[in-house]
Amino acid sequence: MVVILHRNATEAQIENVIKHLEGYGFQTHKSIGVERIIIGAIGVKPNFDTRNISILDGVDEVYRVTTPFKLAGRNFQETNTVVKIKDVEIGGNHVVMMSGPCSVESEDQIFHLAKIVAESGAKILRAGAFKPRTSPYSFQGLGEEGLKLLRAAADQYNLLVITEVMQNEQIDLISRYTDIFQVGARNMQNFSLLKELGKISKPILIKRGIAATIEEWLMSAEYILAGGNKDVILCERGIRTFENYTRNTFDLSAIPVVHKKSHLPIIADPSHATGIRDQVPPMARAAVAAGADGLMIEIHHDPESALSDGPQALLPSTYLKLMDELRLIAKAIGRTL
Amino acid sequence: MVVILHRNATEAQIENVIKHLEGYGFQTHKSIGVERIIIGAIGVKPNFDTRNISILDGVDEVYRVTTPFKLAGRNFQETNTVVKIKDVEIGGNHVVMMSGPCSVESEDQIFHLAKIVAESGAKILRAGAFKPRTSPYSFQGLGEEGLKLLRAAADQYNLLVITEVMQNEQIDLISRYTDIFQVGARNMQNFSLLKELGKISKPILIKRGIAATIEEWLMSAEYILAGGNKDVILCERGIRTFENYTRNTFDLSAIPVVHKKSHLPIIADPSHATGIRDQVPPMARAAVAAGADGLMIEIHHDPESALSDGPQALLPSTYLKLMDELRLIAKAIGRTL
Amino acid sequence: MVVILHRNATEAQIENVIKHLEGYGFQTHKSIGVERIIIGAIGVKPNFDTRNISILDGVDEVYRVTTPFKLAGRNFQETNTVVKIKDVEIGGNHVVMMSGPCSVESEDQIFHLAKIVAESGAKILRAGAFKPRTSPYSFQGLGEEGLKLLRAAADQYNLLVITEVMQNEQIDLISRYTDIFQVGARNMQNFSLLKELGKISKPILIKRGIAATIEEWLMSAEYILAGGNKDVILCERGIRTFENYTRNTFDLSAIPVVHKKSHLPIIADPSHATGIRDQVPPMARAAVAAGADGLMIEIHHDPESALSDGPQALLPSTYLKLMDELRLIAKAIGRTL
Amino acid sequence: MVVILHRNATEAQIENVIKHLEGYGFQTHKSIGVERIIIGAIGVKPNFDTRNISILDGVDEVYRVTTPFKLAGRNFQETNTVVKIKDVEIGGNHVVMMSGPCSVESEDQIFHLAKIVAESGAKILRAGAFKPRTSPYSFQGLGEEGLKLLRAAADQYNLLVITEVMQNEQIDLISRYTDIFQVGARNMQNFSLLKELGKISKPILIKRGIAATIEEWLMSAEYILAGGNKDVILCERGIRTFENYTRNTFDLSAIPVVHKKSHLPIIADPSHATGIRDQVPPMARAAVAAGADGLMIEIHHDPESALSDGPQALLPSTYLKLMDELRLIAKAIGRTL
Repeated sequence: MVVILHRNATEAQIENVIKHLEGYGFQTHKSIGVERIIIGAIGVKPNFDTRNISILDGVDEVYRVTTPFKLAGRNFQETNTVVKIKDVEIGGNHVVMMSGPCSVESEDQIFHLAKIVAESGAKILRAGAFKPRTSPYSFQGLGEEGLKLLRAAADQYNLLVITEVMQNEQIDLISRYTDIFQVGARNMQNFSLLKELGKISKPILIKRGIAATIEEWLMSAEYILAGGNKDVILCERGIRTFENYTRNTFDLSAIPVVHKKSHLPIIADPSHATGIRDQVPPMARAAVAAGADGLMIEIHHDPESALSDGPQALLPSTYLKLMDELRLIAKAIGRTL
Repeated sequence: MVVILHRNATEAQIENVIKHLEGYGFQTHKSIGVERIIIGAIGVKPNFDTRNISILDGVDEVYRVTTPFKLAGRNFQETNTVVKIKDVEIGGNHVVMMSGPCSVESEDQIFHLAKIVAESGAKILRAGAFKPRTSPYSFQGLGEEGLKLLRAAADQYNLLVITEVMQNEQIDLISRYTDIFQVGARNMQNFSLLKELGKISKPILIKRGIAATIEEWLMSAEYILAGGNKDVILCERGIRTFENYTRNTFDLSAIPVVHKKSHLPIIADPSHATGIRDQVPPMARAAVAAGADGLMIEIHHDPESALSDGPQALLPSTYLKLMDELRLIAKAIGRTL
Repeated sequence: MVVILHRNATEAQIENVIKHLEGYGFQTHKSIGVERIIIGAIGVKPNFDTRNISILDGVDEVYRVTTPFKLAGRNFQETNTVVKIKDVEIGGNHVVMMSGPCSVESEDQIFHLAKIVAESGAKILRAGAFKPRTSPYSFQGLGEEGLKLLRAAADQYNLLVITEVMQNEQIDLISRYTDIFQVGARNMQNFSLLKELGKISKPILIKRGIAATIEEWLMSAEYILAGGNKDVILCERGIRTFENYTRNTFDLSAIPVVHKKSHLPIIADPSHATGIRDQVPPMARAAVAAGADGLMIEIHHDPESALSDGPQALLPSTYLKLMDELRLIAKAIGRTL
Repeated sequence: MVVILHRNATEAQIENVIKHLEGYGFQTHKSIGVERIIIGAIGVKPNFDTRNISILDGVDEVYRVTTPFKLAGRNFQETNTVVKIKDVEIGGNHVVMMSGPCSVESEDQIFHLAKIVAESGAKILRAGAFKPRTSPYSFQGLGEEGLKLLRAAADQYNLLVITEVMQNEQIDLISRYTDIFQVGARNMQNFSLLKELGKISKPILIKRGIAATIEEWLMSAEYILAGGNKDVILCERGIRTFENYTRNTFDLSAIPVVHKKSHLPIIADPSHATGIRDQVPPMARAAVAAGADGLMIEIHHDPESALSDGPQALLPSTYLKLMDELRLIAKAIGRTL
């Protein structure tokens, strides 16, 4: 931690700041500059609330100089984490596709779509059985019945399953059916849930909150890692900005930033990021070009009848054409898909 | 719902839009303007996903013309909701103070502060026993032991209790000790939790999420109201903006807006909104001047030793002086405090 | 400047960083902490682009430790700047009102409103003759004819004038008619204009840009101060947030923050901040309670016929009632109005 | 315009709304729905301030149903605008590169870089001679001397020139040296400047403001188009969000959105969007994959000595390697580069 004092801080104020820092367990080191006095405070306290110092008289600014996350950072682990589930590796050179409908709606629907997913070369089937909806009056998912159908469809076509968990009480149930747990954007800081997911042995995909910084997102990953679960996958799905012509703003620069700051894999979800079908293909292509380790794409063979998010689902034909373009782009940057 | 077509939409496109609207159960009504064709779609579907229409060929824009919330709106109830607990009324002419430390830390601490709260004329004691913290390495609260101390201190000084709930499994436990449940900003869209709180018979104070619109906030209130619990209190606690010199931006204009759109009471929390002690008094005064139905204020007699949020806690002496100023401002606008 | 190195930065990388810092003219000072190596870089370079160091190999983070503004800061001048024009002081204990219509529209209109402004006890008449409008098809102001009418109306009722300047070529012309120049939010970073205004001898009121941080706003004030013009007044007028129920979000916490960081006076404009008449009185009251040195309020006796911003103009009767409330609130915090 | 009334609006209120609408020149049409009364107001008034109606008693919400821009929209012109300068076409199938340093710094520098730009296959040389800087103490550009050097270097290597204009008084001077005028993000709503640029006969590239919506950006283009200059190019350069690990957030979804709403070409500037050299290549690749009509890229052979924005400049070797990747990605989506 670095503490910058006012230009005309008094001796008594400087001593008071040092006394406080030492009281909090820091070693201190004073530097006198041309214009300012700077006190370096050394010690391993990643969560120290720097406001405790910034409110002291004579203090101008305080900078924390360690990132608040540890296990999620490159300083802790230099090599990339590769999450392995059977023959699928997330975080390696191969770009991994997670495709499927927004929600499981019926046996026919999920088997039909699982077949298309398998034929496209994707290895992971996505669909929700418990749905977080802004309105209490909207479709809330099929629950356990949906989980059973999802697992059966995936098994039929030799696919892995990813599905969303919303609360602690659902973990045991969902664990019986899924290969990967998904934490939605609205639950990114549901710390009770993150703690419980840190105790289990299946991979967790955690979506970025709509107004979360990358640092906060990595802190949420840290909750899971600190519990002992090392298989964390990040998923960029768009952040809120002032723009109204899109549902969210897809922050693709998060991809190179996460790759620099963290060893965890990062995938991208252009379906939720844009919210409108015809923007999904250009943004999917852009995500692969930017270096995403995978994509999560919503598809539906009859989107007008979909019970949730039909307008952002790709038709199977568009999806299959997109897969061809994505393979060319992956190849252009030395990856496979 | 109102559907605006492209200037040069074809007859076939117009008919297709009408067919879809009728398929979704709307009555339609076509108006031909100077430049545009407009289709009015009439029917009670507050949660209809308008993107289902906006993606049809020939459609330019679609406007939902009903608010998505019902029970929370003035259209449902014109008179103000007044939440009554014993002799305290929240939402009436009296401005209600909820004061106390961020966290319960010890018996001495909470009894000491409860005494000050009672002497100041406030009727409600606030303090957390379960704390949502960004870092897994930070103090997470005293749990049930904290709840017991909080209740005992409040009873000693004839105060009501408000404390935070973070997950469904805590509801029964907390219910034994608190008068009002608080839902934190990060849980504003924890829909599982909101549903459970809709089933109980104690008032719920729901804080605004850091990037939530007022409409989304009222939708979260709607989840509780729809469950049957009518005693919902809103609490503005600052939203995230680009400004870094403050922790959050206190959105005081939310106060007159909520009073116009909703019948629910709204209080304000200048402590979390600013995050720094010396900004709390001016913002507390501003909140009362803007028409808040109450304030939530953090105080601590030894903030440098506080286990959480010490830098934003007012010293008792500052707090008591502030109370005097607030009473003058309340009087200037015809209220008591 | 403080440079934080990677935990496992090599000796060669550390030396390279030091070589670069010295090449840029800094003295350096190396501290070895438990987990990190920190290099302090000392020297007076407020505008040094810290990215020059952050991109070097082995560097984790770089913190600038001086504020980029100098003349605008409390470190440069501890006592408050009080802008004096005839018998009016802006930045003293008296809260100054600047009232009037959005635009000068006609002789009748401006004389009628100037009379009301004078009767209310305000000393400054506000109105625009050159209007920045989002659309090229909207009313753009009366130009010089408007300036003449504005000056004549102000002289008739013994008021000062404040009006907006949009470009360098208008400065001479407007200078003949106004007492205070106003720079609008969209021109806050029109650096050419700010430089020219730094050369003149009349006070400049500079509004905060809709997405500007307080630091950027003070840097814009710095452009004017650096040119030699010391009479700068800041005006908070709302910032853009995700909220759609209000036109802007009035950032009242900017008031105590500016008072802490800068010696310049700050006033508040609740009319533009809210954009809707019935939100102006609560926000005006809140601004005075928060410590604003003045208010800018739009009024109109026939707002339905106003050529710009009629919906946010107060009717004279509402305005006069508000003035009474504001005087009580000013008194509650030891000021006059 | 569509006006939604309160559920229990009185007859008198409804009549008053209709009277006002007709007074403003609209034809009206009343529809009675299950829950609400809706009044359609028909007439060509793209700039009507809808707040004039929303403040009337009994009114719940008002929707404008025409876009505020006309000339910039697809409704006005269905086919893409292709800006032609000599043998270069911007907005066609070929992706156009605009490369060069941030600022002209010296004869050696600009000739050296112009040679690299030409060898890379790019056709347009970018560099600034007048620089908008946040600080009055930073390098402000070489002025006319810079323009002369820029023109000479471009002519030597058969390149076109693009450079920034900051104020009306510079237009004539810059016009003698440049092929394309650039309007910076901070001047996107400098309406005086936009009006003047509407009167000239050279193409204008207009960058998106850091907090501007796409609609506001198109309105700024509208100012130029309305003046008679049809050659407008849009440039996405990143918007401000809460993320601090990047300088700005590159909004690539603006590319498909602009292509849908407008006929104007849109290019992308990954250098300013990210602000850090190592994020430029992934974001440049993503922009082409998303469908950008061109890229603006900053390069420098000695970025550590650059007088502005060195940290975001690509080294020539990285730039040339990037060009190869971009050509493969352009090919993958059926374009050339």
